[in-house]
Amino acid sequence: MDFTRHFAKRTKNMKPSAIREVLKLTQKSDIISFAGGLPAPGLFPVDAIKQAADTVLSTKGAAALQYSTTEGYAPLRNYVASRMQGVSADNVQITSGSQQGLDLVAKVLFDPGDYVAVGAPTYMGALRAFDAYEVRYLSVDCDEQGMIPESLETALKQGVKLIYVIPNFDNPTGVTMSLARREALVSLARQYQVPVYEDDPYGELRFEGESSPSLHALAPELVIYGGTFSKIMVPGFRLGWLIAQEALLVPIVRAKQAADLHTTIFNQMIAYEISKDGFMEEQIKKVRHYYHQQRDLMLHALESYFPEGVHWTRPSGGMFLWVTLPAHVNASEMVYDAVEQQVAYVPGEPFFTDGQGLNTFRLSYSVATPEQIDVGMKRLGDVIARHVRAVAAD
Amino acid sequence: MDFTRHFAKRTKNMKPSAIREVLKLTQKSDIISFAGGLPAPGLFPVDAIKQAADTVLSTKGAAALQYSTTEGYAPLRNYVASRMQGVSADNVQITSGSQQGLDLVAKVLFDPGDYVAVGAPTYMGALRAFDAYEVRYLSVDCDEQGMIPESLETALKQGVKLIYVIPNFDNPTGVTMSLARREALVSLARQYQVPVYEDDPYGELRFEGESSPSLHALAPELVIYGGTFSKIMVPGFRLGWLIAQEALLVPIVRAKQAADLHTTIFNQMIAYEISKDGFMEEQIKKVRHYYHQQRDLMLHALESYFPEGVHWTRPSGGMFLWVTLPAHVNASEMVYDAVEQQVAYVPGEPFFTDGQGLNTFRLSYSVATPEQIDVGMKRLGDVIARHVRAVAAD
Repeated sequence: MDFTRHFAKRTKNMKPSAIREVLKLTQKSDIISFAGGLPAPGLFPVDAIKQAADTVLSTKGAAALQYSTTEGYAPLRNYVASRMQGVSADNVQITSGSQQGLDLVAKVLFDPGDYVAVGAPTYMGALRAFDAYEVRYLSVDCDEQGMIPESLETALKQGVKLIYVIPNFDNPTGVTMSLARREALVSLARQYQVPVYEDDPYGELRFEGESSPSLHALAPELVIYGGTFSKIMVPGFRLGWLIAQEALLVPIVRAKQAADLHTTIFNQMIAYEISKDGFMEEQIKKVRHYYHQQRDLMLHALESYFPEGVHWTRPSGGMFLWVTLPAHVNASEMVYDAVEQQVAYVPGEPFFTDGQGLNTFRLSYSVATPEQIDVGMKRLGDVIARHVRAVAAD
Repeated sequence: MDFTRHFAKRTKNMKPSAIREVLKLTQKSDIISFAGGLPAPGLFPVDAIKQAADTVLSTKGAAALQYSTTEGYAPLRNYVASRMQGVSADNVQITSGSQQGLDLVAKVLFDPGDYVAVGAPTYMGALRAFDAYEVRYLSVDCDEQGMIPESLETALKQGVKLIYVIPNFDNPTGVTMSLARREALVSLARQYQVPVYEDDPYGELRFEGESSPSLHALAPELVIYGGTFSKIMVPGFRLGWLIAQEALLVPIVRAKQAADLHTTIFNQMIAYEISKDGFMEEQIKKVRHYYHQQRDLMLHALESYFPEGVHWTRPSGGMFLWVTLPAHVNASEMVYDAVEQQVAYVPGEPFFTDGQGLNTFRLSYSVATPEQIDVGMKRLGDVIARHVRAVAAD
C-alpha cells in the first residue's frame, strides 16, 4: 500500500529536524561537535538516581509501576509549584519532557492558518511541534535584549494566537530578555489579549548577574510557563511541566490523556525522591559552575581564534551562544567544510521562519572537553577565516 | 484572560474519559470495583526491575539518562521485532505507551471529517485519541467472532481512512476475532486499499485455545500493529510500540520527535535488560495463569448471581468481559445504584460511537481479589435483578 496517499494534510508540514541532520554528519569519530544541545553527562546524578530508584521500588513498588493520574504525581506537582512564585499544584501539569508541553498547548490552541509570533531566530523544536498544527509564523526581530517591542506589536496587529519566547539564555542565541523588554512584552500581550508561552528550560543555569522575574510572575493570567528537569537533572527521564491557569489545563489534561495517558510515574517518583531534601539546590549549583567554566573557555577560544568581522553573543547562562559571520558568508554551506575539518556547529537558518540568518550559527559549549573546545574552535576559526577571505575575494 | 476564546476547533471534540468519571465515583473506600482496566499489581516483577535498574545505571548510567533516538533503543526494537513474524527492527517505533501509537497514527493520517471504521463497541481510549483530529466514525456491527464483514464493507463503501480493531480479547468485549473474520477483514482492506490499525495490548494473555495469526502477519503491507509492555510487564513505564511499513514510520518519527522527542531511554533499557534472557516468557506464563483463574472466578460468579435474561461474553484471554442486560435496562443509570451498593462497572454506552449499548457494561476481573469477586458480583447481581424487575413492572 502506498501510505503517502493516505497522509493528512498536516503531514506535509512535518519536517525532519535540521539539528538531527547535522548530528548525522557528526557521527564520524574524531569530529569535535559544538552542534548538539546535550547536557554534560558527567553532571548526571547517577548515584542519587540509583539510590532513589531503589527506595521507590522498595517502598512504593506497586504504585510506581502502575497506571497513574494524567495530571502527574501529586508530590512532584507540589515540588514544582513550590519553586515558582504564586503557583499552586493545581496549576502544574507534568509532561513527558518540555517538548510535550509545546505539543499539547499547540493541540489545544491552534487551528490551521493561525499565526504564532516567534523570535527571529527561535527554538527549532517549538517550530516542529507547532508545524504539525499547520500554523503560520510571524517573525519578531530580536537584539541583545530579546524581542523588540515595536516588531512584536507589528505582528500582534496582524492577529496572533500565541507569542512564543525563551526569555532566559535563549536557544539558539543565548540572549536574556531585559526586565524592560519583559514588561513591554507582557503589556502588549495584555493589550492584544494574546497568550504567551514562556519556555524556560535554562532559567536555573545563570552564571552571573541578577535574574529578572519570569513572564509568568509578571502576568500569570496569560502566560503559560514550560519547565523541565532535562537540564538540571537528566534528560533521559523525559520529565517536564506546564504551569498555566486551570481553565487552560482542563483541555490540556484531556489532550494529554489522549496522547499518552500519563507521564511515567516511576520516573516522576524518582525525580521527587531526589528533589525533596534539598539535593537539587546542590545539583543546580554544580551544573551552573560547570557550564560557567565551559562558557568562559569558549569565549576565550572565540577571542583567540575567530577572525575579525565575526560577532558572537556573551550568554550569562545556559548552554548556547550565537555567531554572526560577515553578511555574505553562508554558514549552511560552510558546515560541510567544517565537518571536513572535523568540527561541527548548527547552521542558523533553520532557526528562522523567514529565510534570514544564512550567515549565523549556533555553538554549544555543554559537552566538549576543555581540550576539544580549544582544538575545535581553532579548526573552526580557520574554516571561517578561509570563507571570509573567499567571499572578500569574490 | 478567557482562554476558552483561544481554543482550537478540535478542542471542543476533546471529551473527558467516561472511565475516569466512573473511577472518580469509586474513590470511596469499600467499593468493589470491576470498572478500571488496571493490571494486577501483584504480578509486577518489582525485584527484576530493581535489579535491572541497578544494572543499567551501574553499567550504562550516562547513556540511560541522556537524550536518545526518537525511533527507540535499538536492542529493544530488535527484541520487539524478534517476537513478531517477518518483522525487522526497522519496522519498529517505540512509543510512550500504546496510547501514543494511536495519537501518532491519527496525527499522520487524519484530516478533519475523515471517517474511521470502528467496532460497535470499541476501545474508548482510541476514540479519545482520534477525536482530537476531528474525525467521524462509522460503526461496524460485531458479534462473538468480531467485526461482521458485511457491516464493515458498508462502512468501507462510504470511504474510510482507517479500520481500527482489537482482534484479541477486545476491550471492552473480551471477544476474539476468528481466523475467517481476520481473513475477511484483510481481504476487504486490500480491496478498498484502507490501512488497518491492529491494536493488540492483550494478545499475549491467552488462557485457552489456539492463537490466530495477527492481522499484521496476514497483510503486513497495510496493517499497523500496536503493542505494549503495560499488560505483560508494567504500565507505569509507559512503553509501547508500533510496527509498520517504513514509509509510514518516516512521518511517524517526525511526529513523535515533535511530540516528545523520544520515549524515556532509562525505562527502555530496563525493559530490555529484563526481557533479554527469557525472563518475559516466565512472566507472561504467570500473568496468563493468574488472569485465567480470575476469569474463571468471575464466570462462576456470573452464573451464580446474575438473573435470567442477562448475557455475557466468555473471553479466552485478556482482562475484560461484556454484559448485555435486557433491552430496556439502562446500565448508565444503574451504575449509580451499583455504586450505592458498593460495586462498580463501566457502562457500555461510551464505547459506542452511535448511541447504542445503553443496556451493556464492561467488567474487569484483573485486580479484584477472589473474595471481592464473589461479594461484588453478588451485590451487582442483586442490583441488576431489581432493575430487571422494575423494568418488567413498568
